[in-house]
Amino acid sequence: MSKRKKKHRRVKVKNTSFNQVPGQVVYVGSKENLSTSLEIIDYNKESHQVKYTNDVKEVFPYKESENVTWINVNGLNTIKEIEQLGKFYKLHPLILEDIVNTQQRPKIDEYENYIFIVLKMLYYTDAGELVKEHISIVMGNKYILTFQEADGDVFDGLRDHIKNSKGRIRNSGADYLAYAVLDAIIDNYFVIIETMGDKIETLEDSLFLENPDENITQDIQELKREIIRIRKAIYPLREVINRLEKGEHPLIHEKTHHYLRDLYDHIIQVSENIEVYREMTWGLMDMYMTTISNKMNEVMKVLTIMASIFIPLTFIAGVYGMNFDYMPELHFKYSYFYVWGVMLFLFFMMLWYFKRKKWL
Amino acid sequence: MSKRKKKHRRVKVKNTSFNQVPGQVVYVGSKENLSTSLEIIDYNKESHQVKYTNDVKEVFPYKESENVTWINVNGLNTIKEIEQLGKFYKLHPLILEDIVNTQQRPKIDEYENYIFIVLKMLYYTDAGELVKEHISIVMGNKYILTFQEADGDVFDGLRDHIKNSKGRIRNSGADYLAYAVLDAIIDNYFVIIETMGDKIETLEDSLFLENPDENITQDIQELKREIIRIRKAIYPLREVINRLEKGEHPLIHEKTHHYLRDLYDHIIQVSENIEVYREMTWGLMDMYMTTISNKMNEVMKVLTIMASIFIPLTFIAGVYGMNFDYMPELHFKYSYFYVWGVMLFLFFMMLWYFKRKKWL
Amino acid sequence: MSKRKKKHRRVKVKNTSFNQVPGQVVYVGSKENLSTSLEIIDYNKESHQVKYTNDVKEVFPYKESENVTWINVNGLNTIKEIEQLGKFYKLHPLILEDIVNTQQRPKIDEYENYIFIVLKMLYYTDAGELVKEHISIVMGNKYILTFQEADGDVFDGLRDHIKNSKGRIRNSGADYLAYAVLDAIIDNYFVIIETMGDKIETLEDSLFLENPDENITQDIQELKREIIRIRKAIYPLREVINRLEKGEHPLIHEKTHHYLRDLYDHIIQVSENIEVYREMTWGLMDMYMTTISNKMNEVMKVLTIMASIFIPLTFIAGVYGMNFDYMPELHFKYSYFYVWGVMLFLFFMMLWYFKRKKWL
Amino acid sequence: MSKRKKKHRRVKVKNTSFNQVPGQVVYVGSKENLSTSLEIIDYNKESHQVKYTNDVKEVFPYKESENVTWINVNGLNTIKEIEQLGKFYKLHPLILEDIVNTQQRPKIDEYENYIFIVLKMLYYTDAGELVKEHISIVMGNKYILTFQEADGDVFDGLRDHIKNSKGRIRNSGADYLAYAVLDAIIDNYFVIIETMGDKIETLEDSLFLENPDENITQDIQELKREIIRIRKAIYPLREVINRLEKGEHPLIHEKTHHYLRDLYDHIIQVSENIEVYREMTWGLMDMYMTTISNKMNEVMKVLTIMASIFIPLTFIAGVYGMNFDYMPELHFKYSYFYVWGVMLFLFFMMLWYFKRKKWL
Amino acid sequence: MSKRKKKHRRVKVKNTSFNQVPGQVVYVGSKENLSTSLEIIDYNKESHQVKYTNDVKEVFPYKESENVTWINVNGLNTIKEIEQLGKFYKLHPLILEDIVNTQQRPKIDEYENYIFIVLKMLYYTDAGELVKEHISIVMGNKYILTFQEADGDVFDGLRDHIKNSKGRIRNSGADYLAYAVLDAIIDNYFVIIETMGDKIETLEDSLFLENPDENITQDIQELKREIIRIRKAIYPLREVINRLEKGEHPLIHEKTHHYLRDLYDHIIQVSENIEVYREMTWGLMDMYMTTISNKMNEVMKVLTIMASIFIPLTFIAGVYGMNFDYMPELHFKYSYFYVWGVMLFLFFMMLWYFKRKKWL
Repeated sequence: MSKRKKKHRRVKVKNTSFNQVPGQVVYVGSKENLSTSLEIIDYNKESHQVKYTNDVKEVFPYKESENVTWINVNGLNTIKEIEQLGKFYKLHPLILEDIVNTQQRPKIDEYENYIFIVLKMLYYTDAGELVKEHISIVMGNKYILTFQEADGDVFDGLRDHIKNSKGRIRNSGADYLAYAVLDAIIDNYFVIIETMGDKIETLEDSLFLENPDENITQDIQELKREIIRIRKAIYPLREVINRLEKGEHPLIHEKTHHYLRDLYDHIIQVSENIEVYREMTWGLMDMYMTTISNKMNEVMKVLTIMASIFIPLTFIAGVYGMNFDYMPELHFKYSYFYVWGVMLFLFFMMLWYFKRKKWL
Repeated sequence: MSKRKKKHRRVKVKNTSFNQVPGQVVYVGSKENLSTSLEIIDYNKESHQVKYTNDVKEVFPYKESENVTWINVNGLNTIKEIEQLGKFYKLHPLILEDIVNTQQRPKIDEYENYIFIVLKMLYYTDAGELVKEHISIVMGNKYILTFQEADGDVFDGLRDHIKNSKGRIRNSGADYLAYAVLDAIIDNYFVIIETMGDKIETLEDSLFLENPDENITQDIQELKREIIRIRKAIYPLREVINRLEKGEHPLIHEKTHHYLRDLYDHIIQVSENIEVYREMTWGLMDMYMTTISNKMNEVMKVLTIMASIFIPLTFIAGVYGMNFDYMPELHFKYSYFYVWGVMLFLFFMMLWYFKRKKWL
Repeated sequence: MSKRKKKHRRVKVKNTSFNQVPGQVVYVGSKENLSTSLEIIDYNKESHQVKYTNDVKEVFPYKESENVTWINVNGLNTIKEIEQLGKFYKLHPLILEDIVNTQQRPKIDEYENYIFIVLKMLYYTDAGELVKEHISIVMGNKYILTFQEADGDVFDGLRDHIKNSKGRIRNSGADYLAYAVLDAIIDNYFVIIETMGDKIETLEDSLFLENPDENITQDIQELKREIIRIRKAIYPLREVINRLEKGEHPLIHEKTHHYLRDLYDHIIQVSENIEVYREMTWGLMDMYMTTISNKMNEVMKVLTIMASIFIPLTFIAGVYGMNFDYMPELHFKYSYFYVWGVMLFLFFMMLWYFKRKKWL
Repeated sequence: MSKRKKKHRRVKVKNTSFNQVPGQVVYVGSKENLSTSLEIIDYNKESHQVKYTNDVKEVFPYKESENVTWINVNGLNTIKEIEQLGKFYKLHPLILEDIVNTQQRPKIDEYENYIFIVLKMLYYTDAGELVKEHISIVMGNKYILTFQEADGDVFDGLRDHIKNSKGRIRNSGADYLAYAVLDAIIDNYFVIIETMGDKIETLEDSLFLENPDENITQDIQELKREIIRIRKAIYPLREVINRLEKGEHPLIHEKTHHYLRDLYDHIIQVSENIEVYREMTWGLMDMYMTTISNKMNEVMKVLTIMASIFIPLTFIAGVYGMNFDYMPELHFKYSYFYVWGVMLFLFFMMLWYFKRKKWL
Repeated sequence: MSKRKKKHRRVKVKNTSFNQVPGQVVYVGSKENLSTSLEIIDYNKESHQVKYTNDVKEVFPYKESENVTWINVNGLNTIKEIEQLGKFYKLHPLILEDIVNTQQRPKIDEYENYIFIVLKMLYYTDAGELVKEHISIVMGNKYILTFQEADGDVFDGLRDHIKNSKGRIRNSGADYLAYAVLDAIIDNYFVIIETMGDKIETLEDSLFLENPDENITQDIQELKREIIRIRKAIYPLREVINRLEKGEHPLIHEKTHHYLRDLYDHIIQVSENIEVYREMTWGLMDMYMTTISNKMNEVMKVLTIMASIFIPLTFIAGVYGMNFDYMPELHFKYSYFYVWGVMLFLFFMMLWYFKRKKWL
């Protein structure tokens, strides 16, 4: 139970930021990195350079570069450095607040010189727990900034493509890079969905076992909760991607629009799958109810058959156990065998009756 | 159970394309054709020609033809040939990706020189399994391309009409041909719907049998799942056809619009029928629950009647089976018969009571 | 059961028109008229003329007439004559297809010279079966054509008004006549709704009988199905009437708009009533479930009371029926009466206990 | 039951107006006034006059008056007089039809010289029955006409305000008077809602009694029906008031718009409350189901405890009631007491077992 | 029960204002302050002044001040003083009515010189009861007025920020102050949501206890009601904030719009959380039903096992308790032991049977 409880806790909104000054930057998440680390990937058609650092100032020279620069910030605890970065890139204070507020729902904010996107990276830990990681993207003219809560992400494939110059990425601008980052995150949602499908299947199979675990109600409820959380993380993203595609922000090039429309298709597909799983999970509870009722029917039938057969027979035996002085049958020679005959006849009559009713 | 499991598996999204480079063409379906075969149908008002080949290059000369050309590609495994075709017809890389991504939901993409439509061909195999086949249509100026996963389709009637010059088709352009292809696919949805109606009817009838199979819950769940899958395949098509009809793409001639509106009517009608079947299927579970409860009521009544009649009688017999030295009744001459009288009286009283309560 | 089955069958979509050539006219309904008969009503302010014929050519002269002409076609089997009529009035081939396709859902198609409306005429047969008759209306400049599946309709009142020059009809054009036809059909929906209300009431009453018929589940399901069918026939009509009223087709005169708005109000009112009945019918199932559960509770109480009272008493009797050599109580003079006292005391204790629990 | 039945009947749509000529004025309600009575209130800033009459002609002179005139018509049976009034004020025939058709749903119709509004006045009779009274308002330039089914309304407060020159009313025009009439009707909906809240509370409390009345299902169903009826009467009014406020009809003065927006707020608030009560009422059924199931659980526990304790003990007594010649235990001196010991031990074991299971 | 009842009562709409004159100012809430107290906070970039008074006239001088002035009115009973204030600030009579009508739902009214907002302040008392406090905001050019029902609010943090010149507030105008007030109220909704999450968790845990309290149904229903009330208080606010942000009222400065959009994000987030909790709470009832059914299954199994084992054995004992003269088995030497053998064999057979069925 204690394991469950811990899981429950995570559902609650731990927004401890009430009565804050608006625009004040406070990290409210639960993942603690000791320090914030930066990863700088700078590339153009010909060259490609990667740099890791803990010092935010090392980022500044890249602003002058003619290349596309991707600055990936891991860890949101060291507020000061994020504020430094924000000041350097002239980000609005509310953006900084949203970067570190891990409760923020997916959204898009379009400013004159940059586009700001918040979304959630979802993955299952090895222990099977669903992790929801807050991630923010600032897309500028020749750069993008990404802010993650912790190390470890879904961008390894993308890093590889940049390094090996696979696909269009080295020939395209920061808008295509932002698209590729979003694409990597959304592609990973399909893994979540596949895992969820497996879970539903497992639950469904265990419903039809001879003796379903009584905890199955809790498992179904847990799954419902998980689906609700995933939905909450993913659904608002549809609106975000749609606005990105439909919007006419000058930072998004004409030819990137086709890719964004494709992304929109993917997020719609994820949403539809979630909706399907949701309906199935809700249906599981009904199935469980009929399963319980069927079991009870079976229990009742056993009781009814045993009682209906033996109670009348016991009565007959009781009658001839009475001690009246004058009970003529007791003294007939074959009475005892006649009574056995009657009792056997009743016994088989009852069997035949229950057979005909298909209870046996 | 193992048969069921296999069916379940198919529900999952087997999108193994994560971390791909966007625009990379990978076939993710499960139907394996050894080779990709092409069918070329070229016709105008007067002439008509059909050609089968495995060599994609044989298609190229037809581009110059003044006739309407329908190139039907069977099998999506040999990526290379599809890419060759795509390059020849100058298709966008994302289109090629969608052609082979069998998870892609129905959609329409309008480009300057062609319209791209993705949809699903649905049919039941002889074994009664629902098959969802991914099909893509590229409609150009004087040609249409169709891409299917496997041999066997619903176009035989259409081929026949072209050959025998039935209806308007030989007098019309590529847009009418595209309409005819869509019409053939959507007309076939009515067969699916009819089969589904039969399934619901069979389930409903078996619910009211004396002893409904306990697996009926699973059957209902399976049917729900099937309806959900069909809905997922068909619903987005409404939007597709609507955009095709409402849109003002120059490739669609004025007089084809009436036909497209008719198509839209059909797809709406299919959707409404699915919705009706969905409501009915969801209602089946409730019906099953009341059926179970009614059965249990009946079981309980039998038990209650047997127990209520014989337990008191057994008690009376028990009383006169006691061995007290002084029990005056035991020595009266007709006690035994009086007791039988009382017991029979009670017996008939109980019968009358249960009769009056309508339990018998 | 066989009666029910036949009813079920009717729910299915019997669209056998797959793989047809689009625009091909095939009657798919089930009502067979041996021949198609025509009724021609021609009137103006002063004169009024009615003619019955089987020959479609007799219609043609009326096209020249300055009067309003209503041509009512009964029976959709003789395709040839409908095609002849269609050709004469220059109807689009798709319209001819929709006229004879009884599966077509209600719709409106506006052409330059005429407006085409499809809808359903609903009535209960004397046997209480719901009949859904396909009816199409073509409204032109000085004429309207109506196509019905079979003889017998809801227009008798309207014919009477035309004949006796009641109301505005003889002073108005073809648009008002079309309105009057629609009004007659929609007014008749209120009869359907009243019958449905009676059915719900009957079901509800029978739910609260001492022993509701077990078939009541089937009856509720049947009623649900009927409501679903009616909804399917009527709901799309709201859109049709709305477009007719909002649209600015030159064939509809300014002053007819008020009448159309009134018609729209009626169809909304019908829809709302259906929605109300739908909610009530869905609620019936829940009521039935609680009814069953209450019955079971009652059954269980009888069993529990009988068993709880007599099982302990039987035990006591059993104890003094044991044959031990040394059982001192057996030999006391009043033991037997003491035991009876104890048993009666227990009996009344139990009665009092169950009385207090309000189970008696 | 007969009382209930009568209530049910009222739900049905008793629209007996089918096959009428459109625009024909027929009263279809159930409230019969022997005659139609008129109340004329004529006022301006300084003066105020009230007149009661049965003669419709007495109304005519007021049309010339510069004052605001409110003509309130009670009783819709004497069609002729309503038609006379309609002709005098040049009302469209469809309006007259709607005035007497008590089935008409709330609506607004804007004409050039007047605005026509239909709505429902709701109140509970002293017997607790919900009455739905059809009321129509025609608002002209210097007059308003109101048509009610029967005597008795919710306007006494308003009459008082006019008489005593309270509030803005005597300084405002006919549009403000129409607003005040609507406001009086809508304010009264809050009484309805309060009564409904009381009913839900009463039902909820009675659900948790020891022995809820079995008729509670019917009471819940009745309440559902009542909510559905109220909803049907009130919901369309939102659209009506919204159009009145948003519309720019010249008869509505600029400064009245703020009051109409306030009215709109009130009707939204009523709708929200109905929605809340609806959800609560629907929840009552679920609560009742769990209540029944809990009761059944309790019944079953009593049975199980009694049977589980005494059946084994009876078996032991039965064993030593057997008549075998050779049963050594029967002849030991203290056997009887040992057996009692065993039986008491079993008895207390069972008690302890059920205690531990918390069934006792 | 009486405690509950009092809670229920609060759900009802206690709108006793029917038949009032529109625009008449009557306080309808339940919180009684003996007097209305005023708090005046006046500040600019450099200076900051706070003043408490009971005399409404002390407010008037501040109107001339160039500073931003926040006038916070506590207590809505002394209508006269609120009317005085309203007259001084030239507020529309309907606004005054809404300020004291605590039943008013959240809304925004835009006037030329000020914006009027109504919303609800929600908090839990120490006794765990949810309190819904009506609060109105009038935002003018250099001032804002806030009207609360009682002392005690969620603005302490905000007062502190103004005093200590934290954040942007001292550098901004009245529009930013209004934003800050709204932000403080909405931030507090997150506390409500967290408490609600705890309540759901507690209920869920108690569902899975060995013996869930039967009152749990009432607790779930209570929680449902609470969620419904909170939803009613919060949902309309989305529209309010949205209109404030989207609207182009000259009183709202350009740079405040970003903050309002942020506020809108927060209220959407609160709404989504409520929706999630709603779904979970509704699911609790289903879980409880399965829990009850599982318990009943367990009870039935115990009964069935006990009865099925001992009823046949008792029958056997009964047979050999019969008193027939001629019962050969009675006289065999080891009959008694054979019978014990048979009975033990049956006993273990039954145990094995129930073991195999997994009922033990």
